[in-house]
Amino acid sequence: MMKSDLPPSGIEYFFNPRSIAIVGASANLTKLSGRPVDALIKNKFAGKIYPVNPRYSEIAGLTCYRAIGDVPGPVDLAVVSVPAEATIEALEACARAKVKTTVVFTSGFAEIGEAGMLMQERMADIARQNGMRILGPNCLGMIYYPKVVMASFSDIMFIERSHAGKMAFITQSGAFGEKTFIQCAEDGVGMNAFISVGNEADLGFSDFIAHLVGDDEISLFGAYVEGAKDGRKFRHAAEAALRAGKPVLIKKVGRTASGTRAARSHTGALAGNDRIYDSFFRQTGIIRIDELRDLTCFAQVFQSRRQPKGPNVAILTDSGGPGVEMADCCERFGLNVPELSHKTRTAIEAAIPSYGSARNPIDMTAAIMTDDALYTKCLRAIFADDDIDIVFAPAVFMSYASPGLLDEALDIYRSSDKPLVLCPIWADSSPESQAMVERACREGIPMIPEASDAARAMAAWVRWSAKRKTFMAQTAKMPAVPAQARKKAEKILQKHGPLTEYDSKKILAAYGIPTTKEEPAATASAAVTVARRIGYPVALKVLSPDIEHKTEAGGVCLNLQSDAAVRRAFAQILKNAAKHAPGAAVEGVLVQEMLPAGVEVIVGVTKDPVFGPVVMFGLGGVLVEVLEDVSFRVVPLSPDDAMEMIREVKGARILSGVRGRPASDIRALAEIILRVSRLAVDFADVIEELDINPLVVYPQGARAADALVVKKQ
Amino acid sequence: MMKSDLPPSGIEYFFNPRSIAIVGASANLTKLSGRPVDALIKNKFAGKIYPVNPRYSEIAGLTCYRAIGDVPGPVDLAVVSVPAEATIEALEACARAKVKTTVVFTSGFAEIGEAGMLMQERMADIARQNGMRILGPNCLGMIYYPKVVMASFSDIMFIERSHAGKMAFITQSGAFGEKTFIQCAEDGVGMNAFISVGNEADLGFSDFIAHLVGDDEISLFGAYVEGAKDGRKFRHAAEAALRAGKPVLIKKVGRTASGTRAARSHTGALAGNDRIYDSFFRQTGIIRIDELRDLTCFAQVFQSRRQPKGPNVAILTDSGGPGVEMADCCERFGLNVPELSHKTRTAIEAAIPSYGSARNPIDMTAAIMTDDALYTKCLRAIFADDDIDIVFAPAVFMSYASPGLLDEALDIYRSSDKPLVLCPIWADSSPESQAMVERACREGIPMIPEASDAARAMAAWVRWSAKRKTFMAQTAKMPAVPAQARKKAEKILQKHGPLTEYDSKKILAAYGIPTTKEEPAATASAAVTVARRIGYPVALKVLSPDIEHKTEAGGVCLNLQSDAAVRRAFAQILKNAAKHAPGAAVEGVLVQEMLPAGVEVIVGVTKDPVFGPVVMFGLGGVLVEVLEDVSFRVVPLSPDDAMEMIREVKGARILSGVRGRPASDIRALAEIILRVSRLAVDFADVIEELDINPLVVYPQGARAADALVVKKQ
Repeated sequence: MMKSDLPPSGIEYFFNPRSIAIVGASANLTKLSGRPVDALIKNKFAGKIYPVNPRYSEIAGLTCYRAIGDVPGPVDLAVVSVPAEATIEALEACARAKVKTTVVFTSGFAEIGEAGMLMQERMADIARQNGMRILGPNCLGMIYYPKVVMASFSDIMFIERSHAGKMAFITQSGAFGEKTFIQCAEDGVGMNAFISVGNEADLGFSDFIAHLVGDDEISLFGAYVEGAKDGRKFRHAAEAALRAGKPVLIKKVGRTASGTRAARSHTGALAGNDRIYDSFFRQTGIIRIDELRDLTCFAQVFQSRRQPKGPNVAILTDSGGPGVEMADCCERFGLNVPELSHKTRTAIEAAIPSYGSARNPIDMTAAIMTDDALYTKCLRAIFADDDIDIVFAPAVFMSYASPGLLDEALDIYRSSDKPLVLCPIWADSSPESQAMVERACREGIPMIPEASDAARAMAAWVRWSAKRKTFMAQTAKMPAVPAQARKKAEKILQKHGPLTEYDSKKILAAYGIPTTKEEPAATASAAVTVARRIGYPVALKVLSPDIEHKTEAGGVCLNLQSDAAVRRAFAQILKNAAKHAPGAAVEGVLVQEMLPAGVEVIVGVTKDPVFGPVVMFGLGGVLVEVLEDVSFRVVPLSPDDAMEMIREVKGARILSGVRGRPASDIRALAEIILRVSRLAVDFADVIEELDINPLVVYPQGARAADALVVKKQ
Repeated sequence: MMKSDLPPSGIEYFFNPRSIAIVGASANLTKLSGRPVDALIKNKFAGKIYPVNPRYSEIAGLTCYRAIGDVPGPVDLAVVSVPAEATIEALEACARAKVKTTVVFTSGFAEIGEAGMLMQERMADIARQNGMRILGPNCLGMIYYPKVVMASFSDIMFIERSHAGKMAFITQSGAFGEKTFIQCAEDGVGMNAFISVGNEADLGFSDFIAHLVGDDEISLFGAYVEGAKDGRKFRHAAEAALRAGKPVLIKKVGRTASGTRAARSHTGALAGNDRIYDSFFRQTGIIRIDELRDLTCFAQVFQSRRQPKGPNVAILTDSGGPGVEMADCCERFGLNVPELSHKTRTAIEAAIPSYGSARNPIDMTAAIMTDDALYTKCLRAIFADDDIDIVFAPAVFMSYASPGLLDEALDIYRSSDKPLVLCPIWADSSPESQAMVERACREGIPMIPEASDAARAMAAWVRWSAKRKTFMAQTAKMPAVPAQARKKAEKILQKHGPLTEYDSKKILAAYGIPTTKEEPAATASAAVTVARRIGYPVALKVLSPDIEHKTEAGGVCLNLQSDAAVRRAFAQILKNAAKHAPGAAVEGVLVQEMLPAGVEVIVGVTKDPVFGPVVMFGLGGVLVEVLEDVSFRVVPLSPDDAMEMIREVKGARILSGVRGRPASDIRALAEIILRVSRLAVDFADVIEELDINPLVVYPQGARAADALVVKKQ
């Protein structure tokens, strides 16, 4: 593990401070800088509270100190709430007083432009030089419920939260964070940590995820992200969470052009390329959410602690329509609604009226209003079916329900470990039915009114579980790259000036990527000799580091069948090159074997400002470009990443063979993708771009027909 | 207008009955057959109420009659609530008593299988023979609030509804209908008509839409549909609604395989092909909804009666994060978030703090908490900007707001006709702020908490408005088809047995679709003569009605350059045909010009069981097949439909010219699509399938290279 992969040292003091100082505390407890004092007292923080403000000698019954240096004991966490222009001085005072961590509410830094940016850099320096960690500036601060850390000025400190689960929510937008907190409280989703990271002068959201992965009080992460500053840290945090079995759900804004514009004007964060973020999320098992309810619904099903074993859903309804709707939603989000086993169907058929349906979705019909024993009979049959992983059922706990109905339903539920989601049918507001609904909730059974929300949440969990399984197993092997490969490639890359196709393919070949047979030739006669050695037909391509687009320059002749044709082509190419690029250094031609036809694909590498080198895969041809049907992964790739990025490209289904064509060697393709990833990792600082276009994939093997490596300028 | 396009006669009695009889009425008003009596009395139906049941002489103070024939006055609407086996007899009695319309609640018909289906057909016969209209069976009945028609047994009759708008909701699922009603009542969406159509023995959902289009008490339609029985009626109803400016929103289930399975077991309706439904919805301006909230949110914005003039949105926020989120949502659903004009920006910059943002989204920052005059200053600037069509703003009507804030905001709103959606920031539950929120609601300003919901609803309205505009304008002209075209085509179609490529192309040519120059030849010498006439190079194709896949049969030779090549090819093709299809009648070969390269597309016709002939368009090639990147439209197509179906295919962007290729003649392509549509309409009963594959599109014009018309067996 590299140093930058470790959680930053000192961050732990935020979550278990022995003392909290409030620098700039107000005696008016409703004011921004009075609220932390108020919240710490009201919520009974067990450690010491030190208000600091030269204007008061006492605040809310606590001694108020003139300066942070006057505080009698050690300070683990200082909340800094002073005007922007006084912030640097206050932080320096904190550093001198050996404060461990600070929270800076104040705005007026990177988000306002150049001057603010300079102040913020100074802030980061103070943190670095003194080992004092900073959260903020320009943030709502943080709350950590298990230790009653109320280092925030948000009103949410005074709202009753749910105690049902253990979510940490980390946000680059204070307002969105508050909205999320409120919604969680309403939906019975328990939040144990709330962290508003603001401008991230020192610590970023990844640091908090990386730290809290090891905290037993956190089992789930939610985050609102406009842009990450450090892709490496982000990856480390995401993978640590995946390893620990703690899902990370992220609302990433800036998907679209105008969204991105706003994100840039709002914070100093780089919005990056949203497609790369999306690929990164898939790669690291992060669940991307579009809407707040996606987070709260996922949290609700996750809190039940019943992980689905697979994607097979049984749907129990009292009416055909909602059953069809739920089935649609399940398949839309990737769950299965399989046919039920003969045994299960027989048991259900015996229970329901003849005009009901024992097929999945199961329709008990409105007969349930007069005979609710139907419900438990069906529920029992479904829970007993080993082919069913997930159960969606209506909440029929209405005033007309038999007294023992809920008891029996809960018995069935407890006897199994399958997840169950109750989809309330329209509410009966009688106290009896409300009481039943509350009992089911207390049992931890999620109630989600909209079919799509329930299905989306459960499908995300199924997908995440599968991702985690492959991530932990890592069964597939990485291809071996010979020890001398790096040296060989390095030598070629050290060449002065841009690389040619010939140079580029030698680099690929060093890394075990099959290429065309080819040799350079400086004269027509040499070209003929080489052509004979390679075997006809051959192609001739102009060999010049100065001509990047060979075809456009008339520098390519394909399918040459004879010595004479090679001689003619040689002359023509040199003439064209001289005309097209008069000053270009032409080294002759590259004589190349003609590859037989196969499926043409593209494998490339490009640099992302946040994530560094990313590998791209797509099919060849103009149509693919138009459809933007390509996939990305951040290096280094795992074998599973390579397979997934092939599967992700819709058109890549032609690789499995369609219209009677033979299937292509997907394994060989995946291996080449991995070798390209290795190359990109080894030369992350040197290689700016790489393109194998096309790579021709055959029923057995694949070969690079054309390639170019572009060095960093 | 054809007879089937008129709303069915007699349907109007459902919506203004002078009297309602309840056949099988129960004296227990909580029972299914007692509830309509109860609801009619409680809600004060102004006409006569006639309970009919031989077991009682009086129900709830009303005279109860032994039989429908005993009722003293004319009966406009009879609710029939008797067991399935007594239903036919009851309907016959109604028919004899000259009842105008009936509602049949009873289940046990088509949904239970063969026997029920027969009873249901008998029911339809009674309706037809007597001109008595039937709603149901197997339904919740109907409610029409303007005339207090309570012909249902649903509990929703006793729930207070909202009076804000005029929606009609028509549903093939009772349970989903009830859920929708409740949600509408909660969200302040007014429903004036609720119709549960059940098995649609006589009247279907399209009939009710077609009728209510002419009703001033209805301005908006919602529907839950599993499958339509009659595509023609559906189209008429949808187009009538579009013409009348009354949007139709449909939740269509059965999108996926398991959904479809359930829909089939649930009702007798044909689920049809979901992709064809989807195309039909686009074609007719129907707004397809996935989730119930899509309906209620649309209704909320629609009820404001402020139709957006265009897609340009200004977003006003008090925090960067929510602004970015809203901008993302807008672009995701097809709205624009443009840069603001210099004038507007200047006005906003003067109002907000320097660390805010006067770019769109506008960030007023939390400064609004201390100076809420900011809000109205920004609002005024946005409302004054003619380039802005839609305003999304936070509801800052909190307890801390200045007393006049809301008055001023409402003044600005009233001075304009732009739609405004308020996106509540997290609620302040004080009575003052609640009162302000209620005042804004009463003004008709929609409040939608989730950004995505607000954007999706407004985007749907913008799209619908644009669709309606082109539909009403119909500016583009239909291509002229010569008068004798139909006769020519008819003659070829009358030929015994399957058609050849040669026959098929003659039909296309008659309808003005350009094809290859070609002639049949029975001998090698004849082939040479034809080839010389057409000009080299040519193609030879086997000419046999019995060989459909010519290439697979070795029956195609391309790019023949000489007489000798033609002779050789002729012999080879006949040999191959004899070997591949020994019994096939071979008429010789078709000698055909070789077309120059162009963009290859496919235009076809297929039959849908619900909608009849549909035209398909896609690009040629195997990749397109894999990606399923094709579009459909139901015949007849308008010129706009043809253009839209070209635009809908993602890969069709290559027609506009990419990578330096010239743009293709999209106008010629659209014209050919329209001519194909005309052909499909003219021979809807004869042509089963049609394929032009490929149609080669050039910078000028397009020509059919291969084609096949398949007749109905």
